Amino acid sequence: MPYDLWYWPGLPGRGEFVRLVLEAAGLPYRDRGVEEGAEALLADMRKGSRLPFAPPYLRTGGRAIAQVANILHWLTERHDLAPVSDRVWLNQLQLTISDMVAEVHNVHHPVATGAYYHEQKPEAARAAAQFRQERLPKFLGYFEDALGDGEWMAGGRWSPVDTSLFQLIAGLRYMFPRRMASVEGDYPALIALYDRVKAVPGIAAYLDSDRRQAFNEDGIFRHYLELDAE
Amino acid sequence: MPYDLWYWPGLPGRGEFVRLVLEAAGLPYRDRGVEEGAEALLADMRKGSRLPFAPPYLRTGGRAIAQVANILHWLTERHDLAPVSDRVWLNQLQLTISDMVAEVHNVHHPVATGAYYHEQKPEAARAAAQFRQERLPKFLGYFEDALGDGEWMAGGRWSPVDTSLFQLIAGLRYMFPRRMASVEGDYPALIALYDRVKAVPGIAAYLDSDRRQAFNEDGIFRHYLELDAE
Repeated sequence: MPYDLWYWPGLPGRGEFVRLVLEAAGLPYRDRGVEEGAEALLADMRKGSRLPFAPPYLRTGGRAIAQVANILHWLTERHDLAPVSDRVWLNQLQLTISDMVAEVHNVHHPVATGAYYHEQKPEAARAAAQFRQERLPKFLGYFEDALGDGEWMAGGRWSPVDTSLFQLIAGLRYMFPRRMASVEGDYPALIALYDRVKAVPGIAAYLDSDRRQAFNEDGIFRHYLELDAE
Repeated sequence: MPYDLWYWPGLPGRGEFVRLVLEAAGLPYRDRGVEEGAEALLADMRKGSRLPFAPPYLRTGGRAIAQVANILHWLTERHDLAPVSDRVWLNQLQLTISDMVAEVHNVHHPVATGAYYHEQKPEAARAAAQFRQERLPKFLGYFEDALGDGEWMAGGRWSPVDTSLFQLIAGLRYMFPRRMASVEGDYPALIALYDRVKAVPGIAAYLDSDRRQAFNEDGIFRHYLELDAE
């Protein structure tokens, strides 16, 4: 029985952190939001009890499991995607990735989640400057140190935190190509991890497929020329 | 052996979500950051491996467990604070509370986490308006529906999500007294839950003690007159 993944169609967004784990682990799933569209997603979200606040969510056995870190922790336990003794640490890292992703979204939507970027461009310019200069090095430096000499974040094999860091770096390279080009040299372990995740067989096959969606300006990682700088 | 809780002294902040659970469950702890100050906290944060990105964290048996939702999930498993079958749902709700708390912080720091409120007042005014009008009712309405007819969020007893919703409502009342006064009537189940948590013996004793810190303008929930409105 495949999982039903529900997320907004047309953007990788937060759904991609779940997709990458399903693909890397070879877990069968249907990408329902992509296949059936936003109206079907909104209708499905209201089904049953214990509803999600927002996509992405995984529907399985009648329940809807939402919140990226919660989904990944649940998949980790169910499919043994990381050693038991590392799971608290990995969940902690995953939540720190979530914090960074929220700050990335805040760069282009600093004052109004419900309004468009073009309605908050001056505020976004300020938010982007401090994100590029302070927050981005602080988070990436933390993950670099957490990785240390390890090939993977824990347990000697890939886990959801590794695929999530891959997506984070891919997204940051898309959103801030100039900034990333100037700072990447400070994070050799993270960049090596990115390349290692890219070569995981399930990930390599996925990236080659038409299931992998390109970043775009409806998603979390958006490339606005005016928000990037060295 | 009591837990060592480490959080910034002088503000309830995110540490309070952990304190409330320790107090409600009667788990002995030392509030190390409050007792020893910020320098001691910063020194402790760098000890060992697998370091936290930020406080709060719980140090126990040599490890540091960070990220509020991760700490509460770990305490729930260790001290059986909720039925096993409800834990994924409760973790999902806790993460949604974390999302709302991050948006609350963003209201007074929309463009620069590292700068002061007075350096971003016009942006904060815009962020506050949309938070009050759109985000606050969306989140509270969601929690109200999630609670439904239940006395507690799950399992027929208090769990960390309940004490966290208590703190969320207390904080919103402090930050937005006018707005909360005008919308609270829409959330009768949540307000009843707030009162119920307040009467949990461990919580009642804590609120009466000098351990409970008042909200202030160094924390997450800040009362700036100009950011509130009906």
